[in-house]
Amino acid sequence: MPLVPEAVERLAAEFGRLPGIGPKTAQRLTFYCLRASAEMSQRLAGALTDLHTRVRPCSRCFFIADGPLCAICTDAKRDGSLLCVVEEALDVLAVERSGEFHGLYHVLGGALSPMDGVGPDELRIRELEARVAEGEIREVVIATDPDVEGEATAYYVAERLAKLEVTVSRPAHGLPAGSDLEYADELTMARAFAGRRAL
Amino acid sequence: MPLVPEAVERLAAEFGRLPGIGPKTAQRLTFYCLRASAEMSQRLAGALTDLHTRVRPCSRCFFIADGPLCAICTDAKRDGSLLCVVEEALDVLAVERSGEFHGLYHVLGGALSPMDGVGPDELRIRELEARVAEGEIREVVIATDPDVEGEATAYYVAERLAKLEVTVSRPAHGLPAGSDLEYADELTMARAFAGRRAL
Repeated sequence: MPLVPEAVERLAAEFGRLPGIGPKTAQRLTFYCLRASAEMSQRLAGALTDLHTRVRPCSRCFFIADGPLCAICTDAKRDGSLLCVVEEALDVLAVERSGEFHGLYHVLGGALSPMDGVGPDELRIRELEARVAEGEIREVVIATDPDVEGEATAYYVAERLAKLEVTVSRPAHGLPAGSDLEYADELTMARAFAGRRAL
Repeated sequence: MPLVPEAVERLAAEFGRLPGIGPKTAQRLTFYCLRASAEMSQRLAGALTDLHTRVRPCSRCFFIADGPLCAICTDAKRDGSLLCVVEEALDVLAVERSGEFHGLYHVLGGALSPMDGVGPDELRIRELEARVAEGEIREVVIATDPDVEGEATAYYVAERLAKLEVTVSRPAHGLPAGSDLEYADELTMARAFAGRRAL
Protein backbone atom coordinates (compact mmCIF):
# COMPACT_ATOMS: atom_id res chain seq x y z
CA MET A 1 0.00 0.00 0.00
CA PRO A 2 1.48 3.39 -0.93
CA LEU A 3 2.37 5.78 1.86
CA VAL A 4 0.59 8.79 0.39
CA PRO A 5 -2.82 9.16 -1.32
CA GLU A 6 -2.86 8.61 -5.08
CA ALA A 7 -3.83 12.28 -5.67
CA VAL A 8 -0.57 13.34 -4.00
CA GLU A 9 1.55 10.91 -6.06
CA ARG A 10 -0.18 12.13 -9.21
CA LEU A 11 0.43 15.85 -8.59
CA ALA A 12 4.08 15.14 -7.73
CA ALA A 13 4.42 13.16 -10.98
CA GLU A 14 2.89 16.03 -13.01
CA PHE A 15 5.16 18.63 -11.37
CA GLY A 16 8.08 16.29 -12.09
CA ARG A 17 7.32 16.41 -15.82
CA LEU A 18 8.22 20.13 -15.90
CA PRO A 19 11.78 20.97 -16.98
CA GLY A 20 14.32 21.41 -14.22
CA ILE A 21 12.01 19.96 -11.55
CA GLY A 22 13.36 16.72 -10.05
CA PRO A 23 11.45 14.24 -7.86
CA LYS A 24 12.37 15.97 -4.58
CA THR A 25 11.37 19.42 -5.78
CA ALA A 26 8.14 17.96 -7.21
CA GLN A 27 7.33 16.44 -3.82
CA ARG A 28 8.13 19.70 -2.03
CA LEU A 29 5.88 21.68 -4.41
CA THR A 30 3.07 19.14 -3.89
CA PHE A 31 3.26 19.37 -0.10
CA TYR A 32 3.44 23.15 -0.36
CA CYS A 33 0.18 23.11 -2.33
CA LEU A 34 -1.34 20.82 0.32
CA ARG A 35 -0.50 23.33 3.04
CA ALA A 36 -1.39 26.40 1.02
CA SER A 37 -5.00 27.36 0.40
CA ALA A 38 -7.15 25.44 -2.08
CA GLU A 39 -7.68 28.83 -3.78
CA MET A 40 -3.99 29.06 -4.63
CA SER A 41 -4.06 25.65 -6.30
CA GLN A 42 -7.30 26.61 -8.06
CA ARG A 43 -5.74 29.79 -9.44
CA LEU A 44 -2.75 27.85 -10.76
CA ALA A 45 -5.05 25.20 -12.27
CA GLY A 46 -7.20 27.90 -13.88
CA ALA A 47 -4.18 29.70 -15.31
CA LEU A 48 -2.94 26.43 -16.84
CA THR A 49 -6.32 25.81 -18.47
CA ASP A 50 -6.66 29.38 -19.74
CA LEU A 51 -3.19 29.28 -21.26
CA HIS A 52 -4.15 26.91 -24.04
CA THR A 53 -7.61 28.34 -24.72
CA ARG A 54 -6.54 32.00 -24.78
CA VAL A 55 -3.04 31.97 -26.21
CA ARG A 56 -2.07 31.05 -29.76
CA PRO A 57 0.89 31.70 -32.05
CA CYS A 58 0.91 35.02 -33.91
CA SER A 59 -0.14 34.21 -37.50
CA ARG A 60 2.70 36.31 -38.90
CA CYS A 61 5.75 35.88 -36.62
CA PHE A 62 4.72 32.85 -34.46
CA PHE A 63 5.41 34.68 -31.21
CA ILE A 64 2.57 34.32 -28.68
CA ALA A 65 -0.66 36.28 -29.12
CA ASP A 66 -4.21 36.42 -27.83
CA GLY A 67 -5.55 37.64 -31.16
CA PRO A 68 -4.55 36.86 -34.76
CA LEU A 69 -1.40 39.04 -34.41
CA CYS A 70 0.96 39.52 -31.43
CA ALA A 71 1.67 42.76 -29.56
CA ILE A 72 4.89 43.30 -31.50
CA CYS A 73 3.42 42.76 -34.99
CA THR A 74 0.55 45.18 -34.22
CA ASP A 75 2.88 47.86 -32.81
CA ALA A 76 3.09 50.61 -35.47
CA LYS A 77 6.24 52.01 -33.85
CA ARG A 78 8.34 48.92 -34.69
CA ASP A 79 10.68 49.03 -37.67
CA GLY A 80 9.16 46.76 -40.32
CA SER A 81 12.37 46.74 -42.39
CA LEU A 82 14.32 44.83 -39.67
CA LEU A 83 13.59 41.19 -38.84
CA CYS A 84 15.11 39.12 -36.03
CA VAL A 85 14.94 35.32 -36.42
CA VAL A 86 14.94 33.32 -33.16
CA GLU A 87 14.43 29.68 -32.23
CA GLU A 88 11.78 30.03 -29.51
CA ALA A 89 9.15 32.51 -28.32
CA LEU A 90 11.09 32.87 -25.05
CA ASP A 91 14.09 34.16 -27.05
CA VAL A 92 11.96 37.14 -28.19
CA LEU A 93 11.70 38.25 -24.56
CA ALA A 94 15.48 37.87 -24.10
CA VAL A 95 16.17 40.10 -27.13
CA GLU A 96 13.50 42.60 -26.02
CA ARG A 97 15.12 42.94 -22.58
CA SER A 98 18.29 44.22 -24.25
CA GLY A 99 16.35 47.23 -25.58
CA GLU A 100 18.68 47.24 -28.61
CA PHE A 101 16.34 45.85 -31.27
CA HIS A 102 13.26 47.68 -32.54
CA GLY A 103 12.26 45.60 -35.55
CA LEU A 104 9.95 42.59 -35.91
CA TYR A 105 10.55 38.90 -35.15
CA HIS A 106 10.23 35.48 -36.71
CA VAL A 107 10.08 32.45 -34.41
CA LEU A 108 11.39 29.33 -36.18
CA GLY A 109 10.04 26.91 -33.58
CA GLY A 110 13.39 25.27 -32.86
CA ALA A 111 16.76 24.56 -34.46
CA LEU A 112 17.80 22.03 -37.09
CA SER A 113 18.60 18.74 -35.37
CA PRO A 114 18.59 15.76 -37.76
CA MET A 115 19.22 13.35 -34.82
CA ASP A 116 15.92 14.46 -33.27
CA GLY A 117 14.09 14.41 -36.59
CA VAL A 118 13.99 18.21 -36.91
CA GLY A 119 14.68 19.10 -40.53
CA PRO A 120 13.97 22.33 -42.45
CA ASP A 121 10.30 21.36 -42.95
CA GLU A 122 9.76 21.15 -39.18
CA LEU A 123 10.83 24.80 -38.77
CA ARG A 124 8.99 27.87 -40.09
CA ILE A 125 11.57 28.61 -42.80
CA ARG A 126 9.12 28.61 -45.72
CA GLU A 127 7.02 31.19 -43.84
CA LEU A 128 10.19 33.26 -43.32
CA GLU A 129 11.04 33.16 -47.03
CA ALA A 130 7.50 34.28 -47.86
CA ARG A 131 7.76 37.25 -45.45
CA VAL A 132 11.12 38.33 -46.87
CA ALA A 133 9.89 37.86 -50.46
CA GLU A 134 7.20 40.51 -49.81
CA GLY A 135 10.07 43.02 -50.16
CA GLU A 136 9.59 45.27 -47.13
CA ILE A 137 12.35 43.65 -45.04
CA ARG A 138 15.81 45.14 -45.55
CA GLU A 139 17.85 43.14 -43.00
CA VAL A 140 17.40 39.77 -41.30
CA VAL A 141 19.35 39.23 -38.03
CA ILE A 142 19.59 35.50 -37.38
CA ALA A 143 19.73 35.24 -33.57
CA THR A 144 19.55 31.48 -33.16
CA ASP A 145 21.41 30.04 -30.12
CA PRO A 146 25.24 30.19 -30.30
CA ASP A 147 25.51 26.38 -30.08
CA VAL A 148 26.07 23.70 -32.73
CA GLU A 149 22.41 23.38 -33.78
CA GLY A 150 21.87 27.13 -33.66
CA GLU A 151 24.94 27.83 -35.82
CA ALA A 152 23.94 25.18 -38.36
CA THR A 153 20.42 26.60 -38.49
CA ALA A 154 21.77 30.15 -38.97
CA TYR A 155 23.91 29.07 -41.93
CA TYR A 156 21.08 27.05 -43.46
CA VAL A 157 18.59 29.94 -43.14
CA ALA A 158 21.14 32.41 -44.54
CA GLU A 159 21.59 30.17 -47.58
CA ARG A 160 17.84 29.92 -48.12
CA LEU A 161 17.58 33.72 -48.01
CA ALA A 162 20.62 34.29 -50.30
CA LYS A 163 18.49 34.39 -53.46
CA LEU A 164 16.36 37.22 -52.01
CA GLU A 165 17.40 40.88 -51.89
CA VAL A 166 18.05 41.19 -48.19
CA THR A 167 21.05 41.69 -45.89
CA VAL A 168 21.56 38.75 -43.53
CA SER A 169 23.48 39.24 -40.28
CA ARG A 170 24.19 37.45 -37.03
CA PRO A 171 24.68 39.02 -33.54
CA ALA A 172 28.36 39.38 -32.59
CA HIS A 173 30.02 36.56 -30.69
CA GLY A 174 32.35 37.47 -27.85
CA LEU A 175 32.84 37.83 -24.14
CA PRO A 176 29.60 38.20 -22.17
CA ALA A 177 29.28 41.54 -20.38
CA GLY A 178 30.08 41.66 -16.68
CA SER A 179 31.95 38.36 -16.70
CA ASP A 180 35.49 37.45 -15.73
CA LEU A 181 38.04 36.88 -18.51
CA GLU A 182 39.48 33.82 -16.75
CA TYR A 183 36.11 32.03 -16.86
CA ALA A 184 35.63 32.37 -20.62
CA ASP A 185 35.77 29.05 -22.49
CA GLU A 186 38.24 28.56 -25.35
CA LEU A 187 35.68 28.94 -28.13
CA THR A 188 34.23 32.15 -26.70
CA MET A 189 37.73 33.56 -26.26
CA ALA A 190 38.74 32.55 -29.79
CA ARG A 191 35.63 34.19 -31.26
CA ALA A 192 36.17 37.32 -29.16
CA PHE A 193 39.70 37.69 -30.52
CA ALA A 194 38.75 36.84 -34.09
CA GLY A 195 36.01 39.49 -33.98
CA ARG A 196 38.09 42.21 -32.27
CA ARG A 197 37.36 45.81 -33.28
CA ALA A 198 39.53 48.94 -33.28
CA LEU A 199 39.01 51.18 -30.26
CA MET B 1 0.70 47.41 -24.07
CA PRO B 2 2.28 44.29 -22.53
CA LEU B 3 4.49 42.13 -24.70
CA VAL B 4 2.79 38.83 -23.85
CA PRO B 5 -0.91 37.89 -23.48
CA GLU B 6 -2.42 38.34 -20.00
CA ALA B 7 -2.95 34.56 -19.67
CA VAL B 8 0.81 34.06 -20.01
CA GLU B 9 1.62 36.74 -17.41
CA ARG B 10 -0.92 35.18 -15.06
CA LEU B 11 0.44 31.63 -15.30
CA ALA B 12 3.99 32.92 -14.78
CA ALA B 13 2.79 34.83 -11.70
CA GLU B 14 1.11 31.71 -10.29
CA PHE B 15 4.19 29.54 -10.91
CA GLY B 16 6.24 32.28 -9.23
CA ARG B 17 4.19 31.93 -6.04
CA LEU B 18 5.55 28.40 -5.52
CA PRO B 19 8.54 28.10 -3.18
CA GLY B 20 11.97 28.14 -4.83
CA ILE B 21 10.61 29.30 -8.18
CA GLY B 22 11.87 32.74 -9.17
CA PRO B 23 10.53 34.98 -11.98
CA LYS B 24 12.87 33.54 -14.63
CA THR B 25 12.06 29.92 -13.79
CA ALA B 26 8.34 30.78 -13.69
CA GLN B 27 8.62 32.27 -17.18
CA ARG B 28 10.52 29.23 -18.43
CA LEU B 29 7.87 26.85 -17.02
CA THR B 30 5.10 28.91 -18.61
CA PHE B 31 6.71 28.83 -22.05
CA TYR B 32 7.35 25.12 -21.63
CA CYS B 33 3.62 24.59 -20.99
CA LEU B 34 2.85 26.67 -24.08
CA ARG B 35 5.00 24.41 -26.24
CA ALA B 36 3.90 21.17 -24.58
CA SER B 37 0.51 19.66 -25.29
CA ALA B 38 -2.65 21.14 -23.82
CA GLU B 39 -3.24 17.66 -22.34
CA MET B 40 -0.10 17.98 -20.18
CA SER B 41 -1.31 21.30 -18.76
CA GLN B 42 -4.79 19.80 -18.29
CA ARG B 43 -3.37 16.85 -16.33
CA LEU B 44 -1.40 19.20 -14.07
CA ALA B 45 -4.48 21.42 -13.59
CA GLY B 46 -6.63 18.37 -12.80
CA ALA B 47 -4.10 17.01 -10.31
CA LEU B 48 -4.03 20.39 -8.54
CA THR B 49 -7.82 20.43 -8.28
CA ASP B 50 -8.05 16.82 -7.10
CA LEU B 51 -5.42 17.40 -4.43
CA HIS B 52 -7.68 19.49 -2.24
CA THR B 53 -10.87 17.51 -2.82
CA ARG B 54 -9.35 14.05 -2.29
CA VAL B 55 -6.66 14.56 0.33
CA ARG B 56 -7.21 15.46 3.98
CA PRO B 57 -5.23 15.20 7.22
CA CYS B 58 -5.34 11.84 9.03
CA SER B 59 -7.72 12.33 11.98
CA ARG B 60 -5.26 10.63 14.33
CA CYS B 61 -1.72 11.64 13.30
CA PHE B 62 -2.40 14.52 10.86
CA PHE B 63 -0.30 12.99 8.10
CA ILE B 64 -2.04 13.03 4.71
CA ALA B 65 -4.85 10.57 4.00
CA ASP B 66 -7.64 9.92 1.53
CA GLY B 67 -9.87 8.36 4.17
CA PRO B 68 -10.35 9.12 7.88
CA LEU B 69 -7.00 7.50 8.72
CA CYS B 70 -3.68 7.53 6.81
CA ALA B 71 -1.84 4.52 5.37
CA ILE B 72 0.52 4.40 8.36
CA CYS B 73 -2.16 4.56 11.08
CA THR B 74 -4.12 1.76 9.37
CA ASP B 75 -1.04 -0.45 8.93
CA ALA B 76 -1.34 -3.25 11.54
CA LYS B 77 2.38 -4.05 11.19
CA ARG B 78 3.48 -0.72 12.67
CA ASP B 79 4.60 -0.59 16.31
CA GLY B 80 1.90 1.29 18.21
CA SER B 81 4.14 1.73 21.26
CA LEU B 82 6.55 4.03 19.37
CA LEU B 83 5.58 7.52 18.26
CA CYS B 84 7.60 9.93 16.13
CA VAL B 85 6.69 13.62 16.39
CA VAL B 86 7.52 15.74 13.30
CA GLU B 87 6.78 19.29 12.20
CA GLU B 88 5.38 18.65 8.72
CA ALA B 89 3.77 15.84 6.71
CA LEU B 90 6.76 15.92 4.34
CA ASP B 91 9.03 15.04 7.29
CA VAL B 92 7.16 11.72 7.66
CA LEU B 93 8.37 10.73 4.20
CA ALA B 94 11.95 11.73 5.10
CA VAL B 95 11.87 9.50 8.21
CA GLU B 96 10.22 6.66 6.26
CA ARG B 97 12.96 6.75 3.63
CA SER B 98 15.53 5.89 6.33
CA GLY B 99 13.77 2.56 6.98
CA GLU B 100 14.84 2.83 10.63
CA PHE B 101 11.54 3.72 12.25
CA HIS B 102 8.54 1.37 12.39
CA GLY B 103 6.22 3.15 14.82
CA LEU B 104 3.49 5.71 14.26
CA TYR B 105 3.71 9.46 13.69
CA HIS B 106 2.30 12.71 14.97
CA VAL B 107 2.49 15.77 12.73
CA LEU B 108 2.57 18.98 14.81
CA GLY B 109 1.84 21.27 11.88
CA GLY B 110 4.93 23.43 12.36
CA ALA B 111 7.36 24.57 15.06
CA LEU B 112 7.02 27.11 17.83
CA SER B 113 7.86 30.55 16.47
CA PRO B 114 6.56 33.40 18.64
CA MET B 115 7.77 35.98 16.10
CA ASP B 116 5.45 34.45 13.49
CA GLY B 117 2.58 34.08 15.96
CA VAL B 118 2.99 30.32 16.26
CA GLY B 119 2.47 29.38 19.92
CA PRO B 120 1.64 25.98 21.48
CA ASP B 121 -2.06 26.36 20.64
CA GLU B 122 -1.27 26.67 16.93
CA LEU B 123 0.45 23.25 16.98
CA ARG B 124 -1.24 19.88 17.60
CA ILE B 125 0.31 19.43 21.05
CA ARG B 126 -2.97 18.94 22.91
CA GLU B 127 -3.83 16.15 20.47
CA LEU B 128 -0.39 14.63 21.12
CA GLU B 129 -0.94 14.71 24.91
CA ALA B 130 -4.31 13.02 24.44
CA ARG B 131 -2.76 10.23 22.32
CA VAL B 132 0.03 9.63 24.85
CA ALA B 133 -2.43 9.75 27.77
CA GLU B 134 -4.25 6.76 26.25
CA GLY B 135 -1.35 4.69 27.66
CA GLU B 136 -0.34 2.54 24.68
CA ILE B 137 2.67 4.65 23.66
CA ARG B 138 5.94 3.70 25.39
CA GLU B 139 8.35 6.10 23.70
CA VAL B 140 7.99 9.41 21.90
CA VAL B 141 10.82 10.38 19.50
CA ILE B 142 10.67 14.12 18.93
CA ALA B 143 12.07 14.55 15.42
CA THR B 144 11.46 18.25 14.92
CA ASP B 145 13.98 20.06 12.68
CA PRO B 146 17.49 20.45 14.17
CA ASP B 147 17.25 24.25 14.00
CA VAL B 148 16.45 26.87 16.65
CA GLU B 149 12.64 26.62 16.38
CA GLY B 150 12.74 22.83 16.15
CA GLU B 151 14.97 22.48 19.23
CA ALA B 152 12.76 24.86 21.23
CA THR B 153 9.68 22.94 20.13
CA ALA B 154 11.31 19.62 21.12
CA TYR B 155 12.09 20.86 24.62
CA TYR B 156 8.65 22.39 25.01
CA VAL B 157 6.90 19.20 23.88
CA ALA B 158 9.15 17.08 26.14
CA GLU B 159 8.15 19.25 29.08
CA ARG B 160 4.46 18.91 28.27
CA LEU B 161 4.87 15.11 28.15
CA ALA B 162 6.99 14.94 31.35
CA LYS B 163 3.94 14.36 33.57
CA LEU B 164 2.93 11.32 31.51
CA GLU B 165 4.51 7.87 31.82
CA VAL B 166 6.45 7.82 28.60
CA THR B 167 10.10 7.90 27.51
CA VAL B 168 10.90 10.98 25.47
CA SER B 169 13.87 10.91 23.08
CA ARG B 170 15.36 12.93 20.27
CA PRO B 171 17.28 11.60 17.25
CA ALA B 172 21.05 11.86 17.70
CA HIS B 173 22.99 14.77 16.30
CA GLY B 174 23.95 13.00 13.16
CA LEU B 175 21.60 15.47 11.54
CA PRO B 176 23.49 18.49 10.22
CA ALA B 177 22.58 21.49 12.40
CA GLY B 178 20.64 24.43 10.97
CA SER B 179 19.23 22.46 8.07
CA ASP B 180 15.78 21.29 7.07
CA LEU B 181 14.69 17.76 8.03
CA GLU B 182 13.36 16.96 4.56
CA TYR B 183 16.80 17.39 2.97
CA ALA B 184 18.54 14.80 5.18
CA ASP B 185 19.97 11.80 3.34
CA GLU B 186 18.82 8.30 4.28
CA LEU B 187 21.98 7.24 6.12
CA THR B 188 22.13 10.39 8.24
CA MET B 189 18.47 9.90 9.08
CA ALA B 190 18.99 6.21 9.90
CA ARG B 191 21.96 6.95 12.18
CA ALA B 192 20.06 9.74 13.87
CA PHE B 193 17.21 7.36 14.69
CA ALA B 194 19.45 4.47 15.77
CA GLY B 195 21.43 6.77 18.09
CA ARG B 196 18.49 8.59 19.71
CA ARG B 197 19.02 9.52 23.37
CA ALA B 198 16.66 10.31 26.26
CA LEU B 199 16.04 14.00 26.85
